[in-house]
Amino acid sequence: MPSYTAPTKDLQYVLHDVLHVSDSDVPGYAELEPDFTSAVLEEAGKLTSEVIAPLNAVGDTEGCKLENGVVRVPSGFQEAFDQVREGGWPGLDMPEEYGGQNMPYVLGTAVGEMFSAANQAFTMYQGLTHGAASAILAHGSDQQKDTYLPKMVSCQWTGTMNLTEPHCGTDLGLMRTKAEPQDDGTYKLTGQKIFISSGEHEMAENIIHLVLAKIPGGPEGIKGVSLFIVPKFLVKDDGSLGDRNGVTCGKLEEKMGIHGNSTCVMNYDGATGYLLGQEHKGMRAMFTMMNEARIGVGMQGLAQADVAYQNALAYAKDRLQGRDVTGAKNPDGPADPLIVHPDVRRMLMDQKSFVEGGRAFILWGASLIDKAHRAEDKDADGLISLMTPVIKGFLTDEGFDMTITAQQVFGGHGYIEEWGMSQFARDARIAMIYEGANGVQALDLVGRKLAQDGGKHVMAFFDLVKNFCAENKDVEGMADFVEPLKKASKDLQAAGMYFMQNGMKNPNAALSGSNDFMHLFGHVCLGLMWGMMARASLKALEDGTPDAAFHETKLATGRYYMTRRLPATAMHLARIESGADPVMALDAEAF
Amino acid sequence: MPSYTAPTKDLQYVLHDVLHVSDSDVPGYAELEPDFTSAVLEEAGKLTSEVIAPLNAVGDTEGCKLENGVVRVPSGFQEAFDQVREGGWPGLDMPEEYGGQNMPYVLGTAVGEMFSAANQAFTMYQGLTHGAASAILAHGSDQQKDTYLPKMVSCQWTGTMNLTEPHCGTDLGLMRTKAEPQDDGTYKLTGQKIFISSGEHEMAENIIHLVLAKIPGGPEGIKGVSLFIVPKFLVKDDGSLGDRNGVTCGKLEEKMGIHGNSTCVMNYDGATGYLLGQEHKGMRAMFTMMNEARIGVGMQGLAQADVAYQNALAYAKDRLQGRDVTGAKNPDGPADPLIVHPDVRRMLMDQKSFVEGGRAFILWGASLIDKAHRAEDKDADGLISLMTPVIKGFLTDEGFDMTITAQQVFGGHGYIEEWGMSQFARDARIAMIYEGANGVQALDLVGRKLAQDGGKHVMAFFDLVKNFCAENKDVEGMADFVEPLKKASKDLQAAGMYFMQNGMKNPNAALSGSNDFMHLFGHVCLGLMWGMMARASLKALEDGTPDAAFHETKLATGRYYMTRRLPATAMHLARIESGADPVMALDAEAF
Repeated sequence: MPSYTAPTKDLQYVLHDVLHVSDSDVPGYAELEPDFTSAVLEEAGKLTSEVIAPLNAVGDTEGCKLENGVVRVPSGFQEAFDQVREGGWPGLDMPEEYGGQNMPYVLGTAVGEMFSAANQAFTMYQGLTHGAASAILAHGSDQQKDTYLPKMVSCQWTGTMNLTEPHCGTDLGLMRTKAEPQDDGTYKLTGQKIFISSGEHEMAENIIHLVLAKIPGGPEGIKGVSLFIVPKFLVKDDGSLGDRNGVTCGKLEEKMGIHGNSTCVMNYDGATGYLLGQEHKGMRAMFTMMNEARIGVGMQGLAQADVAYQNALAYAKDRLQGRDVTGAKNPDGPADPLIVHPDVRRMLMDQKSFVEGGRAFILWGASLIDKAHRAEDKDADGLISLMTPVIKGFLTDEGFDMTITAQQVFGGHGYIEEWGMSQFARDARIAMIYEGANGVQALDLVGRKLAQDGGKHVMAFFDLVKNFCAENKDVEGMADFVEPLKKASKDLQAAGMYFMQNGMKNPNAALSGSNDFMHLFGHVCLGLMWGMMARASLKALEDGTPDAAFHETKLATGRYYMTRRLPATAMHLARIESGADPVMALDAEAF
Repeated sequence: MPSYTAPTKDLQYVLHDVLHVSDSDVPGYAELEPDFTSAVLEEAGKLTSEVIAPLNAVGDTEGCKLENGVVRVPSGFQEAFDQVREGGWPGLDMPEEYGGQNMPYVLGTAVGEMFSAANQAFTMYQGLTHGAASAILAHGSDQQKDTYLPKMVSCQWTGTMNLTEPHCGTDLGLMRTKAEPQDDGTYKLTGQKIFISSGEHEMAENIIHLVLAKIPGGPEGIKGVSLFIVPKFLVKDDGSLGDRNGVTCGKLEEKMGIHGNSTCVMNYDGATGYLLGQEHKGMRAMFTMMNEARIGVGMQGLAQADVAYQNALAYAKDRLQGRDVTGAKNPDGPADPLIVHPDVRRMLMDQKSFVEGGRAFILWGASLIDKAHRAEDKDADGLISLMTPVIKGFLTDEGFDMTITAQQVFGGHGYIEEWGMSQFARDARIAMIYEGANGVQALDLVGRKLAQDGGKHVMAFFDLVKNFCAENKDVEGMADFVEPLKKASKDLQAAGMYFMQNGMKNPNAALSGSNDFMHLFGHVCLGLMWGMMARASLKALEDGTPDAAFHETKLATGRYYMTRRLPATAMHLARIESGADPVMALDAEAF
C-alpha cells in the first residue's frame, strides 16, 4: 500500500531560498513569510497525506458508477471533499470578495502539488471548479460573478469545462453543439460533449458547466464559438436552486486511470445557458481556463512523479536483493537493499533530479503568473505564455516516464495492482493527453509562442540564462552548473535559429522538430532551475547553514541532472536539424 | 475496437530478401523456400488475426477467475486453444520424435511474433509450455522426455516456470522452497512461488510445473538450487493421469495488464517432484529456458509495438482534425486526416522504423540461434549470448514506449479502454519486468557478456559492423546508412573502451552506465539491421522489382531511423562517460 509524504521542506526551500518570495514587491508576496507559508503547507500536508492520499487506491479500485442518471463517487470521497471545503482550500488563491483568501498563485500551486500527488482523480473535482470560476471571474458580468463565484470558490458548487465532442477534440471548429437564442436573453443548448471530467456527481449541490457551443448564423468554424454557463440546477433570483436543467450524464467512460473521477458523456437537450463573455468570442474566454489548466496539468505530471518516486525510494531502501559489487553493505542480513545497485540508483536519481527540478520550474512559473497578474508585468506575462506549453508538455511526458521508472524499481511487484505503482503510471498517463495533447503543446510553442511579439519572449529567456551564467561563472562550485547550462542553451538557440532559417520556406521543417524543441526547452529550463538551486545551496553553505546535509544533497542531485540529463539537448538538436525530409518523406498511402 | 493484420509480407521480406534463409547451409534451412514460409505465415496470420486477436480485449475485460481452486480463463480461450493445438502450432520448431515439425527457430519466431501481437496473455499459455519443454529436452532423462514431451509439444499438457518467491526475485539464492529427498528417488516440495504465469487453468489435461527448490544440506545460496518437474496430476507408468499432486493455486494476482493470463501464487505442500538434470545445478537448467524466454520476451515488446502501431496508423488516416499547414489535403471534407500533421508523422515514423528494424533484429537473432544449435557454430552461440540481453531489454523498453506513442496518436480516445490502446501499453509493460527486469539485462550485458571469452563476441560484433560498412560504403544510396552506422558504432566502441579503462578499478563506473550501454547497443543493432535492409531494397530496385513502392518505403523508413533515432547514441555515450560519481554520490541516507 503506497503512502505519500508532503514535501513541505522542499517547497519551503524553493519558495524562500530560491525564489525569495517574501522579498518580492509583487502585491501579496510580503505576506509570504517563511513561518506563514510553512503553517499553510504543514496544514495542507496533513490533510493530503492523512485524508486524501489513503483514498487514492480506493478511488482506483471502486471507480465511479452511473445508476439511473446518478453518479456515485468512491467511498470516502464525499467526506474528504467536505473536509477540503471546510478547510477553505478551494478558495486559497481566489478573491476575498467571493469568499477566497486572496493568496498568491505561487502558494496555491505549492498546495496544489500536494493535492494532485495525494489523489489526482479526487483533486480534479476542485481543480475543474477552480478553472471554471477563473473564467467567470475574468469574463462574467457582475451578476454572473455574484451568482456563481461565492458558491464555486467554496466548492459548494463545482464546475466543469465542456469542449470536446465525439468528432472534434483539438479542432474545435468542427463543433456541432448549438445554442439557440431565446427571447429572454438566455440560450437553449443542444448537443453532446464527451470526456467531461467531474461532469456529474452528488458531492456538490450544483454543478456549473461551462460549455462551448455555436449560435446559429454565426461565423463558420472556430470563430463562431461562444461560451455558456449551464448550471445543472437552474439558480433562482434569490440564489436558491430551482428546476433541474436539461443536461444529463449519458455514460461514464471506462478509462486507463483516474477512475475516481467521473469522466462523463454529457447530453444537452435544450438546456438553458447564459452567455459568458461575448458572442463568438468563446475561445478567448475558454483560454483563460485553459492556460491555467495547462500549468495545473504540468503540475500533475510532476506530482505523480513525486509520489511514485517516494514509494520507489522506500522500496529500494527496504527490499533486500543481491549484494553491492564493491562489498556487502548489509553483511548481517541475507542480502543488501536494492539501493546499493548502480542501476537502481540511476533510476532513483533520474526521478529525484526531475522531481526537484520540476518543482522549482512549476513554482517559478507560478511566480511569473503572479507578476503578470498582480504586478501587471507584461514581460512576465509574455514569458509565462511562452513557458506554458513547455511546463505542460515536458513535465507530463517526463513525469509519466518517471512513474514508469518508479514502477520498474519494484520489479514484478510493480506490475501488481495492490502495490499501487501501476496506478501512479495509469493516472499520470492522462496528463500527456488532456488540456491539449502534448503534440498540440509543441505546436503551440513552435508555431505560435516562439514568434509572439516578434520573438521578444524567447529572447528574454535567452538573456535570463545568459545573465545567470555571467553572474555565476566565477562563483566557486558553480562551474558544474554554468558550463552544461551554457552548452544546453546554445543547443536551444541553434534549434531556434534552424526554425527561423527554414520554417518560413517550409513550415513542416519547424513542425517536424516541435516535440524535440519542447523537450530541449524543458531540459534547459530544468538546467536553469538547478543552477538557481545550486546558487542558493552554495550560499546557504557559505552562510553556515545548520542543515548542510540538505544542501549538499541538493548540489549532488543537481550535478546529476547537469551531467546525466542535459546531454539530451544535443540529441534533440540533431533531430531538429534533420528537418522535415525524414518525417514527411512518405505519402500517406505509403505507410 | 482494435484489429490486427499479420505482417506476412514484411516477415517474408526479412526472411528472404534480407536474411536469405533458404540459401543458408544451416540444417533445415533449405526447406525454408519463399513459397513454403509464405504458406506457413499466411496460415498463422489467418488464425492469429481472425481467431486469437478478437479475444485480446475479451481477455483484458474478463480476466481470469479463481473459484474453489479452479481457474476459469476468459470466454473463448478454450476453443481458440483447441484450434491452436489442432493446427500443430505449439510444436512447430520442436523435434519430430516428440510430435513436433522440426522447423528452424527462425520460422517459429516469425510465427511467434504474430501470436504475441494478436494476444500476448493468451499466447503465454503455449509460450511457457514451449520453454518448459525446451528445458526437459535439454536436461531431462530419456524417460522424462518420453513421459512429458509428446504431451507438451502438442500442448495437451501445458508448462510453467516457478522461480520467484515473495522475498526473492532476481536474487534466487534467497530461495526457501525445499525439496526433501524420498526413498523412491522422488522429492517432496514445500514452499510458495509467486508470479507464476499460466500457473493454473483448465485448458489442458495436466500442467507440468518446473520448480526451483533447495535440497536440504546442499550448498548455500544460488549454488544449492535444483530444478524439479512437478506435475499437477501425477503421471502413471502407462502415461495416464493419476492423483492430484500437492500443488494448488492460492491466489490470482490483480495486474496492470495481461489479464487473460492466470498469474498465480502457487503453494507446494509436500508435492511430489522429479529432479530435472543434476542436483544443485538447477540454475544451469533453468537458464536453458530463460535465454529462450528472454528472446521471446523481446519479441513481445516488438509485437505489442506493431499491433499498437497498426491501429494508430489506421486512426491517423481516418480521423479528421485540423488542416495541413501547407494546404488542405482533404479540401472537400470538414478537416484533413491526422496523418498530415508533422508531429503525428513523427510519432508514426518512430513506431514504423522501430517495428520494422526490431523485426529484422529478432529474426536475425533467431537465425543465430539456429546456427548455434543446428550447425553447432560456437561463434554464433557466443554472439547470440551477447545479444540476448540487448534483444530483451532494448526491444521491451522501446516497444513499451511505442505503445505509449501509439496511444498518444488517439488523443483522449487513447485513454478510453474501449479503443484498446491502453491494453497494448498495459500488456507491453510487463515485458520490461519479467524474465529478468531490464536493469538485470543491462547488468548481464555489461557485467558478464561483454567480457565473455575474453571479449571475443563483442569484438566479433564490431567486426561485423565494420565489414558491413566497408563492403557498402561505395554502393550508391548506402551512404545515408553507412555514415550514421559508423558514427553510432564508434560511440558504442568508445563506451566499451570507457568500461574497460574504468570498470576494473571501480565496477560501479561500468554498472552506472549499463542501462545506457544496453540502449546504445540496441540502436547500433537496429542501425545495422536498417543498413542490411537498405542494401536488400536497393538491390531489389536495381533488379527491377515489380514492387518498387515497397522498397522505396523501406529506404525512407530506414533513413528516418538513421537520422532521427541514431543520434541517441551520442547521448548515451555522454551519460556513460560521466561515470559513477553522479550516480553514486549520495549516501543511501541522503536520499
